[in-house]
Amino acid sequence: MEALQAIITRRSTRRFEDRVPSRELLDKVIEAGRHAPSGHNNQTTHFIVLTDRKVLDELATLVSEEFSAMDSKPGMYVSMSNSIQRAKKGGYVFHYNAPVLIVAANRIGYGNAMADSACALENMMIAANALDLGSCWINQLHWLTDNDRVRAYLNTIGLEENETVTGALALGYSADGLPCRTPLERKGNPVTYICP
Amino acid sequence: MEALQAIITRRSTRRFEDRVPSRELLDKVIEAGRHAPSGHNNQTTHFIVLTDRKVLDELATLVSEEFSAMDSKPGMYVSMSNSIQRAKKGGYVFHYNAPVLIVAANRIGYGNAMADSACALENMMIAANALDLGSCWINQLHWLTDNDRVRAYLNTIGLEENETVTGALALGYSADGLPCRTPLERKGNPVTYICP
Repeated sequence: MEALQAIITRRSTRRFEDRVPSRELLDKVIEAGRHAPSGHNNQTTHFIVLTDRKVLDELATLVSEEFSAMDSKPGMYVSMSNSIQRAKKGGYVFHYNAPVLIVAANRIGYGNAMADSACALENMMIAANALDLGSCWINQLHWLTDNDRVRAYLNTIGLEENETVTGALALGYSADGLPCRTPLERKGNPVTYICP
Repeated sequence: MEALQAIITRRSTRRFEDRVPSRELLDKVIEAGRHAPSGHNNQTTHFIVLTDRKVLDELATLVSEEFSAMDSKPGMYVSMSNSIQRAKKGGYVFHYNAPVLIVAANRIGYGNAMADSACALENMMIAANALDLGSCWINQLHWLTDNDRVRAYLNTIGLEENETVTGALALGYSADGLPCRTPLERKGNPVTYICP
Protein backbone atom coordinates (compact mmCIF):
# COMPACT_ATOMS: atom_id res chain seq x y z
CA MET A 1 0.00 0.00 0.00
CA GLU A 2 1.18 3.51 -0.80
CA ALA A 3 2.62 5.32 2.23
CA LEU A 4 0.32 8.35 2.37
CA GLN A 5 -2.69 6.11 1.80
CA ALA A 6 -1.60 3.80 4.64
CA ILE A 7 -1.23 6.80 6.96
CA ILE A 8 -4.53 8.50 6.09
CA THR A 9 -6.62 5.30 6.15
CA ARG A 10 -5.29 3.88 9.43
CA ARG A 11 -8.18 3.42 11.86
CA SER A 12 -8.37 1.81 15.29
CA THR A 13 -9.59 -1.80 15.32
CA ARG A 14 -11.27 -3.05 18.50
CA ARG A 15 -12.77 -6.38 17.35
CA PHE A 16 -10.33 -9.11 16.34
CA GLU A 17 -10.38 -12.62 14.92
CA ASP A 18 -8.78 -15.30 17.14
CA ARG A 19 -6.16 -16.40 14.61
CA VAL A 20 -2.62 -15.14 15.15
CA PRO A 21 -1.00 -13.47 12.12
CA SER A 22 2.00 -15.34 10.73
CA ARG A 23 5.41 -14.78 12.24
CA GLU A 24 6.45 -13.26 8.91
CA LEU A 25 3.76 -10.59 9.17
CA LEU A 26 4.51 -9.94 12.83
CA ASP A 27 8.19 -9.50 12.05
CA LYS A 28 7.36 -6.93 9.36
CA VAL A 29 5.28 -4.93 11.83
CA ILE A 30 8.01 -5.12 14.48
CA GLU A 31 10.74 -4.14 12.03
CA ALA A 32 8.68 -1.04 11.22
CA GLY A 33 8.60 -0.24 14.94
CA ARG A 34 12.31 -0.84 15.38
CA HIS A 35 13.05 1.65 12.56
CA ALA A 36 11.40 4.59 14.29
CA PRO A 37 13.71 7.49 15.10
CA SER A 38 14.94 7.91 18.67
CA GLY A 39 16.49 10.72 20.67
CA HIS A 40 20.26 10.77 20.09
CA ASN A 41 19.67 7.46 18.24
CA ASN A 42 19.29 5.72 21.61
CA GLN A 43 17.23 2.78 20.29
CA THR A 44 16.03 1.89 23.79
CA THR A 45 12.42 1.05 23.00
CA HIS A 46 11.88 -2.58 24.04
CA PHE A 47 9.13 -4.55 22.32
CA ILE A 48 7.53 -7.41 24.27
CA VAL A 49 5.47 -9.39 21.78
CA LEU A 50 2.75 -11.50 23.39
CA THR A 51 0.94 -14.17 21.38
CA ASP A 52 0.56 -16.70 24.20
CA ARG A 53 -3.17 -16.85 24.97
CA LYS A 54 -2.51 -17.94 28.54
CA VAL A 55 -0.33 -14.88 29.17
CA LEU A 56 -2.80 -12.55 27.45
CA ASP A 57 -5.65 -13.94 29.57
CA GLU A 58 -3.67 -13.69 32.82
CA LEU A 59 -2.75 -10.11 32.01
CA ALA A 60 -6.37 -9.21 31.22
CA THR A 61 -7.54 -10.69 34.53
CA LEU A 62 -4.82 -8.91 36.47
CA VAL A 63 -5.53 -5.54 34.86
CA SER A 64 -9.25 -5.95 35.45
CA GLU A 65 -8.69 -6.79 39.13
CA GLU A 66 -6.41 -3.82 39.68
CA PHE A 67 -8.70 -1.33 37.92
CA SER A 68 -11.75 -2.62 39.78
CA ALA A 69 -9.92 -1.85 43.05
CA MET A 70 -9.42 1.79 41.96
CA ASP A 71 -11.87 4.68 42.03
CA SER A 72 -12.60 7.30 39.41
CA LYS A 73 -11.63 10.79 40.54
CA PRO A 74 -12.75 14.20 39.32
CA GLY A 75 -10.43 15.42 36.58
CA MET A 76 -9.20 11.90 35.83
CA TYR A 77 -8.50 11.19 32.14
CA VAL A 78 -11.82 9.93 30.73
CA SER A 79 -10.35 6.75 29.19
CA MET A 80 -8.82 5.72 32.52
CA SER A 81 -12.07 6.44 34.31
CA ASN A 82 -13.89 4.29 31.72
CA SER A 83 -11.44 1.44 32.34
CA ILE A 84 -12.15 1.56 36.06
CA GLN A 85 -15.90 1.59 35.55
CA ARG A 86 -15.81 -1.28 33.04
CA ALA A 87 -13.57 -3.33 35.33
CA LYS A 88 -15.99 -2.87 38.24
CA LYS A 89 -18.84 -4.21 36.05
CA GLY A 90 -16.83 -7.38 35.29
CA GLY A 91 -15.75 -9.04 32.04
CA TYR A 92 -13.36 -6.22 31.19
CA VAL A 93 -10.61 -7.18 28.71
CA PHE A 94 -8.30 -4.21 28.16
CA HIS A 95 -6.67 -5.66 25.02
CA TYR A 96 -9.95 -6.38 23.22
CA ASN A 97 -9.02 -10.08 23.07
CA ALA A 98 -6.57 -9.34 20.28
CA PRO A 99 -4.42 -12.38 19.43
CA VAL A 100 -1.28 -10.22 19.70
CA LEU A 101 -0.30 -7.54 22.17
CA ILE A 102 2.97 -5.69 21.63
CA VAL A 103 4.04 -3.93 24.81
CA ALA A 104 6.42 -0.99 24.34
CA ALA A 105 8.78 -0.14 27.18
CA ASN A 106 11.63 2.29 27.57
CA ARG A 107 14.22 3.38 30.15
CA ILE A 108 12.96 4.87 33.41
CA GLY A 109 14.05 8.52 33.64
CA TYR A 110 14.86 8.88 29.92
CA GLY A 111 13.25 12.14 28.79
CA ASN A 112 12.42 10.90 25.30
CA ALA A 113 10.95 7.58 26.46
CA MET A 114 7.36 8.36 25.48
CA ALA A 115 8.27 10.23 22.29
CA ASP A 116 10.49 7.43 20.99
CA SER A 117 8.04 4.67 21.87
CA ALA A 118 5.10 6.55 20.39
CA CYS A 119 6.96 6.91 17.09
CA ALA A 120 7.58 3.15 17.15
CA LEU A 121 3.95 2.37 17.93
CA GLU A 122 2.77 4.68 15.14
CA ASN A 123 5.13 2.99 12.67
CA MET A 124 3.65 -0.37 13.66
CA MET A 125 0.07 0.89 13.26
CA ILE A 126 0.80 2.15 9.76
CA ALA A 127 2.63 -1.07 8.84
CA ALA A 128 -0.27 -3.13 10.19
CA ASN A 129 -2.72 -1.20 8.04
CA ALA A 130 -0.53 -1.67 4.96
CA LEU A 131 -0.50 -5.43 5.69
CA ASP A 132 -4.31 -5.62 6.06
CA LEU A 133 -4.05 -6.03 9.83
CA GLY A 134 -6.02 -4.02 12.38
CA SER A 135 -4.49 -2.41 15.43
CA CYS A 136 -5.28 -0.17 18.36
CA TRP A 137 -3.12 1.80 20.81
CA ILE A 138 -3.57 0.37 24.30
CA ASN A 139 -2.74 2.59 27.30
CA GLN A 140 -3.76 0.49 30.32
CA LEU A 141 -0.36 -1.08 30.99
CA HIS A 142 1.22 2.38 30.77
CA TRP A 143 -1.20 3.68 33.37
CA LEU A 144 -0.49 0.66 35.60
CA THR A 145 3.26 0.47 35.01
CA ASP A 146 3.98 1.32 38.67
CA ASN A 147 1.23 -0.95 40.03
CA ASP A 148 3.03 -3.59 42.12
CA ARG A 149 1.17 -6.67 40.84
CA VAL A 150 1.15 -5.60 37.20
CA ARG A 151 4.82 -4.68 37.31
CA ALA A 152 5.77 -7.96 38.98
CA TYR A 153 3.89 -9.90 36.29
CA LEU A 154 5.45 -7.88 33.45
CA ASN A 155 8.89 -8.54 34.95
CA THR A 156 8.26 -12.28 34.51
CA ILE A 157 7.64 -11.80 30.78
CA GLY A 158 10.60 -9.60 29.94
CA LEU A 159 10.12 -6.08 31.33
CA GLU A 160 13.50 -5.06 32.74
CA GLU A 161 13.87 -3.46 36.17
CA ASN A 162 15.08 -0.20 34.56
CA GLU A 163 12.14 0.00 32.13
CA THR A 164 8.72 1.62 32.23
CA VAL A 165 5.77 0.70 29.99
CA THR A 166 5.15 3.55 27.56
CA GLY A 167 2.29 2.03 25.58
CA ALA A 168 1.09 -1.05 23.76
CA LEU A 169 -0.53 -2.21 20.56
CA ALA A 170 -3.41 -4.66 20.12
CA LEU A 171 -2.88 -6.35 16.76
CA GLY A 172 -4.58 -8.91 14.57
CA TYR A 173 -7.12 -9.48 11.81
CA SER A 174 -10.19 -7.31 12.12
CA ALA A 175 -13.28 -9.38 12.98
CA ASP A 176 -15.19 -7.16 10.55
CA GLY A 177 -13.08 -8.15 7.54
CA LEU A 178 -10.53 -5.71 6.18
CA PRO A 179 -9.81 -2.79 8.50
CA CYS A 180 -12.22 0.09 8.00
CA ARG A 181 -10.29 2.46 5.80
CA THR A 182 -12.61 5.43 5.62
CA PRO A 183 -10.53 8.22 7.12
CA LEU A 184 -12.14 9.62 10.24
CA GLU A 185 -12.90 13.31 9.80
CA ARG A 186 -10.41 15.63 11.53
CA LYS A 187 -12.33 18.40 13.23
CA GLY A 188 -9.51 19.09 15.68
CA ASN A 189 -5.72 19.03 15.20
CA PRO A 190 -5.72 22.67 14.05
CA VAL A 191 -3.06 24.15 11.79
CA THR A 192 -1.61 27.68 12.02
CA TYR A 193 0.43 28.87 9.03
CA ILE A 194 3.08 31.55 9.53
CA CYS A 195 4.16 32.27 5.96
CA PRO A 196 5.90 35.30 4.45
CA MET B 1 6.32 4.98 -2.20
CA GLU B 2 5.21 1.76 -0.58
CA ALA B 3 4.36 2.18 3.11
CA LEU B 4 6.79 -0.31 4.66
CA GLN B 5 9.57 1.02 2.43
CA ALA B 6 8.81 4.60 3.48
CA ILE B 7 8.96 3.58 7.14
CA ILE B 8 12.16 1.53 6.96
CA THR B 9 14.08 4.02 4.80
CA ARG B 10 13.20 7.18 6.76
CA ARG B 11 16.39 8.84 7.96
CA SER B 12 17.03 12.14 9.69
CA THR B 13 18.07 15.01 7.40
CA ARG B 14 20.16 17.81 8.91
CA ARG B 15 21.26 19.74 5.78
CA PHE B 16 18.58 21.47 3.76
CA GLU B 17 18.21 23.45 0.56
CA ASP B 18 16.84 26.97 0.98
CA ARG B 19 13.82 26.51 -1.29
CA VAL B 20 10.48 26.02 0.44
CA PRO B 21 8.50 22.95 -0.71
CA SER B 22 5.22 23.80 -2.46
CA ARG B 23 2.10 24.40 -0.40
CA GLU B 24 0.65 21.25 -1.99
CA LEU B 25 3.50 19.12 -0.61
CA LEU B 26 3.35 20.80 2.79
CA ASP B 27 -0.37 20.18 2.99
CA LYS B 28 0.16 16.47 2.25
CA VAL B 29 2.69 16.22 5.06
CA ILE B 30 0.41 18.08 7.47
CA GLU B 31 -2.62 15.99 6.53
CA ALA B 32 -0.56 12.91 7.41
CA GLY B 33 0.13 14.46 10.81
CA ARG B 34 -3.50 15.39 11.38
CA HIS B 35 -4.54 11.77 10.72
CA ALA B 36 -2.47 10.34 13.58
CA PRO B 37 -4.49 8.60 16.28
CA SER B 38 -5.12 10.43 19.55
CA GLY B 39 -6.20 9.41 23.02
CA HIS B 40 -10.00 9.24 23.18
CA ASN B 41 -9.88 10.77 19.68
CA ASN B 42 -9.07 14.14 21.26
CA GLN B 43 -7.40 15.63 18.18
CA THR B 44 -5.72 18.37 20.22
CA THR B 45 -2.31 18.39 18.55
CA HIS B 46 -1.80 21.89 17.14
CA PHE B 47 0.54 22.33 14.17
CA ILE B 48 2.28 25.69 13.79
CA VAL B 49 3.83 25.72 10.33
CA LEU B 50 6.64 28.22 9.95
CA THR B 51 7.97 29.10 6.49
CA ASP B 52 8.66 32.79 7.18
CA ARG B 53 12.46 33.18 7.12
CA LYS B 54 12.30 36.20 9.43
CA VAL B 55 10.40 34.22 12.06
CA LEU B 56 12.70 31.20 11.68
CA ASP B 57 15.74 33.42 12.11
CA GLU B 58 14.31 35.25 15.14
CA LEU B 59 13.46 31.92 16.75
CA ALA B 60 16.96 30.55 16.10
CA THR B 61 18.56 33.64 17.66
CA LEU B 62 16.26 33.50 20.67
CA VAL B 63 16.88 29.78 21.28
CA SER B 64 20.63 30.28 20.93
CA GLU B 65 20.58 33.16 23.44
CA GLU B 66 18.57 31.21 25.98
CA PHE B 67 20.70 28.05 25.70
CA SER B 68 23.92 30.04 25.94
CA ALA B 69 22.67 31.44 29.27
CA MET B 70 22.19 27.89 30.64
CA ASP B 71 24.76 25.48 32.03
CA SER B 72 25.21 21.78 31.39
CA LYS B 73 24.62 19.69 34.49
CA PRO B 74 25.71 16.17 35.35
CA GLY B 75 23.05 13.69 34.29
CA MET B 76 21.54 16.13 31.79
CA TYR B 77 20.22 14.55 28.58
CA VAL B 78 23.22 14.57 26.21
CA SER B 79 21.38 16.29 23.34
CA MET B 80 20.32 19.16 25.60
CA SER B 81 23.83 19.47 26.94
CA ASN B 82 25.13 19.58 23.34
CA SER B 83 22.65 22.37 22.51
CA ILE B 84 23.95 24.45 25.43
CA GLN B 85 27.57 23.92 24.45
CA ARG B 86 26.95 24.75 20.78
CA ALA B 87 25.00 27.87 21.73
CA LYS B 88 27.85 29.08 23.93
CA LYS B 89 30.25 28.72 20.98
CA GLY B 90 28.00 30.94 18.82
CA GLY B 91 26.35 30.41 15.43
CA TYR B 92 24.01 27.77 16.78
CA VAL B 93 20.86 27.22 14.66
CA PHE B 94 18.65 24.61 16.33
CA HIS B 95 16.47 24.01 13.24
CA TYR B 96 19.42 23.36 10.89
CA ASN B 97 18.28 26.30 8.73
CA ALA B 98 15.48 24.18 7.32
CA PRO B 99 13.07 26.22 5.19
CA VAL B 100 10.12 24.81 7.15
CA LEU B 101 9.67 24.17 10.85
CA ILE B 102 6.45 22.52 12.01
CA VAL B 103 5.97 23.03 15.75
CA ALA B 104 3.69 20.51 17.47
CA ALA B 105 1.86 21.63 20.59
CA ASN B 106 -0.77 20.04 22.78
CA ARG B 107 -2.88 20.83 25.85
CA ILE B 108 -1.05 21.47 29.13
CA GLY B 109 -1.90 18.73 31.63
CA TYR B 110 -3.26 16.29 29.02
CA GLY B 111 -1.68 12.92 29.81
CA ASN B 112 -1.48 11.81 26.18
CA ALA B 113 -0.01 15.09 24.92
CA MET B 114 3.42 13.71 24.05
CA ALA B 115 2.14 10.36 22.77
CA ASP B 116 -0.40 11.96 20.43
CA SER B 117 2.01 14.57 19.11
CA ALA B 118 4.79 12.04 18.60
CA CYS B 119 2.47 9.90 16.48
CA ALA B 120 1.65 12.99 14.41
CA LEU B 121 5.32 13.90 14.00
CA GLU B 122 6.19 10.34 12.98
CA ASN B 123 3.38 10.36 10.39
CA MET B 124 4.82 13.56 8.97
CA MET B 125 8.36 12.13 8.84
CA ILE B 126 7.16 9.08 6.91
CA ALA B 127 5.05 11.22 4.58
CA ALA B 128 8.02 13.53 3.97
CA ASN B 129 10.21 10.58 3.03
CA ALA B 130 7.54 9.25 0.66
CA LEU B 131 7.42 12.70 -0.97
CA ASP B 132 11.23 12.88 -1.39
CA LEU B 133 11.55 15.46 1.40
CA GLY B 134 13.96 15.23 4.29
CA SER B 135 13.01 15.84 7.91
CA CYS B 136 14.37 15.71 11.43
CA TRP B 137 12.71 15.68 14.86
CA ILE B 138 13.62 18.89 16.72
CA ASN B 139 13.38 18.91 20.53
CA GLN B 140 14.75 22.33 21.52
CA LEU B 141 11.42 24.17 21.65
CA HIS B 142 9.99 21.32 23.76
CA TRP B 143 12.85 21.71 26.22
CA LEU B 144 12.34 25.49 26.30
CA THR B 145 8.53 25.49 26.30
CA ASP B 146 8.45 27.00 29.81
CA ASN B 147 11.24 29.49 29.13
CA ASP B 148 9.65 32.94 29.49
CA ARG B 149 11.14 34.57 26.38
CA VAL B 150 10.65 31.55 24.12
CA ARG B 151 7.09 31.06 25.31
CA ALA B 152 6.25 34.74 24.85
CA TYR B 153 7.57 34.62 21.29
CA LEU B 154 5.72 31.40 20.47
CA ASN B 155 2.52 32.98 21.80
CA THR B 156 2.89 35.70 19.15
CA ILE B 157 2.93 33.09 16.38
CA GLY B 158 0.00 30.96 17.47
CA LEU B 159 0.88 28.93 20.57
CA GLU B 160 -2.19 29.10 22.82
CA GLU B 161 -1.96 29.85 26.54
CA ASN B 162 -3.22 26.34 27.37
CA GLU B 163 -0.69 24.62 25.11
CA THR B 164 2.79 23.19 25.62
CA VAL B 165 5.31 22.46 22.85
CA THR B 166 5.68 18.69 22.51
CA GLY B 167 8.12 18.61 19.61
CA ALA B 168 8.87 19.96 16.16
CA LEU B 169 9.92 18.92 12.69
CA ALA B 170 12.57 20.47 10.44
CA LEU B 171 11.43 19.88 6.87
CA GLY B 172 12.65 20.55 3.36
CA TYR B 173 14.69 19.26 0.45
CA SER B 174 17.88 17.53 1.49
CA ALA B 175 20.95 19.53 0.49
CA ASP B 176 22.57 16.20 -0.41
CA GLY B 177 19.98 15.32 -3.03
CA LEU B 178 17.37 12.69 -2.29
CA PRO B 179 17.18 11.77 1.39
CA CYS B 180 19.63 9.03 2.33
CA ARG B 181 17.49 5.93 2.30
CA THR B 182 19.91 3.29 3.53
CA PRO B 183 18.24 2.05 6.70
CA LEU B 184 20.38 2.67 9.76
CA GLU B 185 21.26 -0.59 11.47
CA ARG B 186 19.19 -1.30 14.57
CA LYS B 187 21.48 -2.62 17.28
CA GLY B 188 19.11 -1.58 20.07
CA ASN B 189 15.31 -1.63 20.21
CA PRO B 190 15.31 -5.24 21.47
CA VAL B 191 12.40 -7.63 20.96
CA THR B 192 11.19 -10.25 23.45
CA TYR B 193 8.76 -12.87 22.09
CA ILE B 194 6.37 -14.60 24.47
CA CYS B 195 4.79 -17.24 22.24
CA PRO B 196 2.96 -20.47 23.10
